[in-house]
Amino acid sequence: MSEQLRQQIYQELDSLVLIDPHTHINQLAPASTTLADILGYHYYTELAHSAGLARDQIEEEGIEPREKVARLMTQMGPLSNTIQYSWFLEMAQQLFGFEGTIIDQGNWESVYDAAAEKMAAPDWAEQVLRQSKLEAVFLTNDFDDPLEGFDTGVYIPCLRTDDLVFKLAEPSVRMRLEQATDCVLTDVASLRQSLSALFDHFTAHQARACAISLPPDFSPRRVSEGRAETALAALLAQEAGADASHLQSIGQFVFWTLAELCDQHQLPFDLMIGVNRGVYPGGVYQGQDLYDSRVSLIQYEELFNAFPAVTFPISVLASVTNQELTSYAWIFPNVVTNGHWWYSNTPTFIEHDAAARLEAVPRTKQIGYYSDMYKLEFALPKFNMYKRILSKILAERFVVDRRWSEEDAVDLGKQVLRGNVERIFNVGGGE
Amino acid sequence: MSEQLRQQIYQELDSLVLIDPHTHINQLAPASTTLADILGYHYYTELAHSAGLARDQIEEEGIEPREKVARLMTQMGPLSNTIQYSWFLEMAQQLFGFEGTIIDQGNWESVYDAAAEKMAAPDWAEQVLRQSKLEAVFLTNDFDDPLEGFDTGVYIPCLRTDDLVFKLAEPSVRMRLEQATDCVLTDVASLRQSLSALFDHFTAHQARACAISLPPDFSPRRVSEGRAETALAALLAQEAGADASHLQSIGQFVFWTLAELCDQHQLPFDLMIGVNRGVYPGGVYQGQDLYDSRVSLIQYEELFNAFPAVTFPISVLASVTNQELTSYAWIFPNVVTNGHWWYSNTPTFIEHDAAARLEAVPRTKQIGYYSDMYKLEFALPKFNMYKRILSKILAERFVVDRRWSEEDAVDLGKQVLRGNVERIFNVGGGE
Amino acid sequence: MSEQLRQQIYQELDSLVLIDPHTHINQLAPASTTLADILGYHYYTELAHSAGLARDQIEEEGIEPREKVARLMTQMGPLSNTIQYSWFLEMAQQLFGFEGTIIDQGNWESVYDAAAEKMAAPDWAEQVLRQSKLEAVFLTNDFDDPLEGFDTGVYIPCLRTDDLVFKLAEPSVRMRLEQATDCVLTDVASLRQSLSALFDHFTAHQARACAISLPPDFSPRRVSEGRAETALAALLAQEAGADASHLQSIGQFVFWTLAELCDQHQLPFDLMIGVNRGVYPGGVYQGQDLYDSRVSLIQYEELFNAFPAVTFPISVLASVTNQELTSYAWIFPNVVTNGHWWYSNTPTFIEHDAAARLEAVPRTKQIGYYSDMYKLEFALPKFNMYKRILSKILAERFVVDRRWSEEDAVDLGKQVLRGNVERIFNVGGGE
Repeated sequence: MSEQLRQQIYQELDSLVLIDPHTHINQLAPASTTLADILGYHYYTELAHSAGLARDQIEEEGIEPREKVARLMTQMGPLSNTIQYSWFLEMAQQLFGFEGTIIDQGNWESVYDAAAEKMAAPDWAEQVLRQSKLEAVFLTNDFDDPLEGFDTGVYIPCLRTDDLVFKLAEPSVRMRLEQATDCVLTDVASLRQSLSALFDHFTAHQARACAISLPPDFSPRRVSEGRAETALAALLAQEAGADASHLQSIGQFVFWTLAELCDQHQLPFDLMIGVNRGVYPGGVYQGQDLYDSRVSLIQYEELFNAFPAVTFPISVLASVTNQELTSYAWIFPNVVTNGHWWYSNTPTFIEHDAAARLEAVPRTKQIGYYSDMYKLEFALPKFNMYKRILSKILAERFVVDRRWSEEDAVDLGKQVLRGNVERIFNVGGGE
Repeated sequence: MSEQLRQQIYQELDSLVLIDPHTHINQLAPASTTLADILGYHYYTELAHSAGLARDQIEEEGIEPREKVARLMTQMGPLSNTIQYSWFLEMAQQLFGFEGTIIDQGNWESVYDAAAEKMAAPDWAEQVLRQSKLEAVFLTNDFDDPLEGFDTGVYIPCLRTDDLVFKLAEPSVRMRLEQATDCVLTDVASLRQSLSALFDHFTAHQARACAISLPPDFSPRRVSEGRAETALAALLAQEAGADASHLQSIGQFVFWTLAELCDQHQLPFDLMIGVNRGVYPGGVYQGQDLYDSRVSLIQYEELFNAFPAVTFPISVLASVTNQELTSYAWIFPNVVTNGHWWYSNTPTFIEHDAAARLEAVPRTKQIGYYSDMYKLEFALPKFNMYKRILSKILAERFVVDRRWSEEDAVDLGKQVLRGNVERIFNVGGGE
Repeated sequence: MSEQLRQQIYQELDSLVLIDPHTHINQLAPASTTLADILGYHYYTELAHSAGLARDQIEEEGIEPREKVARLMTQMGPLSNTIQYSWFLEMAQQLFGFEGTIIDQGNWESVYDAAAEKMAAPDWAEQVLRQSKLEAVFLTNDFDDPLEGFDTGVYIPCLRTDDLVFKLAEPSVRMRLEQATDCVLTDVASLRQSLSALFDHFTAHQARACAISLPPDFSPRRVSEGRAETALAALLAQEAGADASHLQSIGQFVFWTLAELCDQHQLPFDLMIGVNRGVYPGGVYQGQDLYDSRVSLIQYEELFNAFPAVTFPISVLASVTNQELTSYAWIFPNVVTNGHWWYSNTPTFIEHDAAARLEAVPRTKQIGYYSDMYKLEFALPKFNMYKRILSKILAERFVVDRRWSEEDAVDLGKQVLRGNVERIFNVGGGE
């Protein structure tokens, strides 16, 4: 019974047209041009490296796309169990017309060629969006992105702020900020002014969120104006050589100011909590980050209390933090659960984490999924994975365990997949 | 096969008459008088607030019960996915004769009226107990409760001690202690004498447990008499203004003395570990507490070793602590697993946590469930939820996976539901 | 469908002949001589003690094996739910010819006698290996084990190093080291020389791994030669009375040197992370250890980066650390997941942890299971438990959820059960 039920629910959920609320798409080159764009995604390069392929083989300067794929394919066998490999396979089947069930060293070239031909179509990005049933995707824009030359109804700007909070001591970051805002950074007033200018720029270009990823030891605090002034002076004078306490204070100040600006501009502030950067410096590009799972949302107590009018869609990197997220979203009106991030974006963790949320957090406060993709082709297999798991949970835990009707279960699924994205970010049909 | 099996096991478990080993029932007003008593439970008010209802709407002074329910019902839609809503629905169906499958703004008034009529019966509390198959429930009594005017065979006293450990610096708490024990608090000897008097009073009134909830950073330590004397002097002189180290020492001293008194009076000491109070001060009544899940039972090492003759039924707030609880109960003879507390009292966590316990902790050392209820009507749906999950675990993990007979599985379920409660707390048929 | 499928996959996996990559077998007395060797395993003595049997009853000096079993059997009823009891039962059924489904006070003597008769056979150890489909087992040898008088093709040496890292301050440990290596310990050079001699000795006797168990607060660090010299001098002068910082530094130095020697000798270094020793000193032998689950693999960041050529098969004690292990093995080429250790070696945790690994870690980097046994009879029921769970995961999560063929699923199972053990440790058919 249950398997057929899952299938039926899946079909219903799969009929939805979606908005993807968090991606790393480059709006000016949203889709892939060869399979190297697909297998160059860090999920494959890092796994291939983990399985034995040397970094310099993967990242050799000037390597041809076909050669890069050839090298990565030598390590696909060891990855064939992973859910990441299954994304690749499903993508090839659905988007490139591949009809087999395994892509290996014997047949990858035909997939490469078929993909290249498809990708050469001038409207390939639109084809992918249409086939993936995607109406729009959120971007992750650098703070100095001009946000011009694309349709912000399809590619929705989102202000990414990691550099501002954690790298303001770097001259290049401050220079980018000054150039983007036409404002010289000399004191706290000018810093606040330039941050404010960024929000003006982004909201003028239909940005619908501010976002940041945070290390496990970060704990937001309101910093006094005087403390911030001292810290900024030290930072301007000594840059990265300034005392760590100053760097920390200025990071805290910028973060808090961003929250204030989200409040003023009614922008949700996406917090992605728990990543340690550069844990494995010998790893491939974007394959160096890991985490310390000893993090708690209690670190965000002051923030959640200080900004009752700001919505915080929260992603946690480790599944062990998911119960806290569930509980904090159950208690704090401004905390919303947001997708399944990175190392928790695999079926066992998604199933456990999503089930816990679905039974304890108000249904209006759950953003089911985002793809986190760099190229449009990934939305289809990633969302399909999530929809299958969601269907399993709805079938087993709602229809069977709690005797819900299939219709009610489907409605719940649709709400976390689409309805809440519209309402929380003020996009799509909800406008 | 498995679904029918679950159902059969559930029927068997559901035939048991139970004793609820932890509730917050007011023995002088155990049942509800209107639906406002039901929906006024913090599980609903906090979720409704989280979903968007302002606190002053919920807690307006002098609001009529029907109006309060009307306001809360405006937010029931967003909660319809929650297991808490399902308790409400099942209660209405089983206790108030409601025949639908959804209670919303269109029909709640008829449920309100039906409930009010039922609740008006002079023997309503007894009806609820009977229909819920409850023989007795444990209370959570303030230390100065006179414990008079009720049947302690049905409403079993339990000495709650949070105020003594954490709030002795408050004059009102000390005054209540002095009045309850007729003993002036001047030094450690008088403090010990008054605590001892509380135990005499409670055990004279058939108390069967001492209980306390503890924050994640609490770690019991034996405090020397001299240290306690200094700390108490500071506390008496400066009250809440005393140095934090003094407040901590006196808390430690009181806690340790309570354990000594449990030892002398052969009372189990229920420890409910992991709550941070007042994390969201803007929340509704009883809807302000959350937690930091970074807590370990290693903090209780000294305590468990020091009191081998005291049984510690332990509840943990976060599911990530459940494996430690399982392991500590597997090793320490005096550690017993106790129910599924608060933020872990939802199906996904119960299923994972109970399964782990059932396969690794001696069957005699597991208290399956308690309702934690404030009004009698909640025992029925909460215990039913647990019994369904327990049936699922027994069916899937014992009968199917381990090839147990259905009878053996049912026996195990009955033992954790009832038998162990009798033996561990020395109540019911076991006496 | 799924239950039959599980069964089919199980049959395929069960046809494999295995190598057990971690046990505590005494190569000179590998099998049991009476049931007291079986029930004397700490998994039974500690549970029986936890359920109420006094330690001095279990550990009475000079007690006869039959009497010891008689006493333990008085507490088997309370343990009948545990997976540990099921190991005992399955072992009796498969190895001793027991035909019932319960062993209790009424019939244990016949099992005792049947077992004794079987165990009396001169080739009992070989019988057990054959019946358990075991080709070889890894040992856990003290560093001063002469490693003589046995077939290292069946009993594969493994250098256990806890004493060297954590107990070098004990004169008896240093004396054993000096005698084993014929090298007087006076300074860092001689310490390094003696450690090197151990590796020469072990690799000359076909050792295939170095291993250590580590407390949750251990964090490997490279220690300078000068710092180590100072620390060692203090340790030699003051022994356990030396300052804690010296003891810690020398432990760090020895650990790091072991990793260097693993590098030179191409030996994998098994890390078993997370145990606190002696938490319950009143417990039975080997039943006193527990843990603080607040540990992170970030503590091993420096180590993993410093030794890219050393393979680290890693076991974690707590299931809450399993996602970190999964992620670190996904990123670091030299990190391999290793079995399900101790308090995580029960079905609910194995199922959750193994599923997460199987879908995110390269299939070549997962060692499915080891028995951790002290007597050969335990491999059969423990591996069977794992194979059943593995079959369940493969059936439900690969064949059903991801539409794999049964053959592919079986291949994945075989690889984590056997193929990876051969390749990673350079043993068996892979040589």
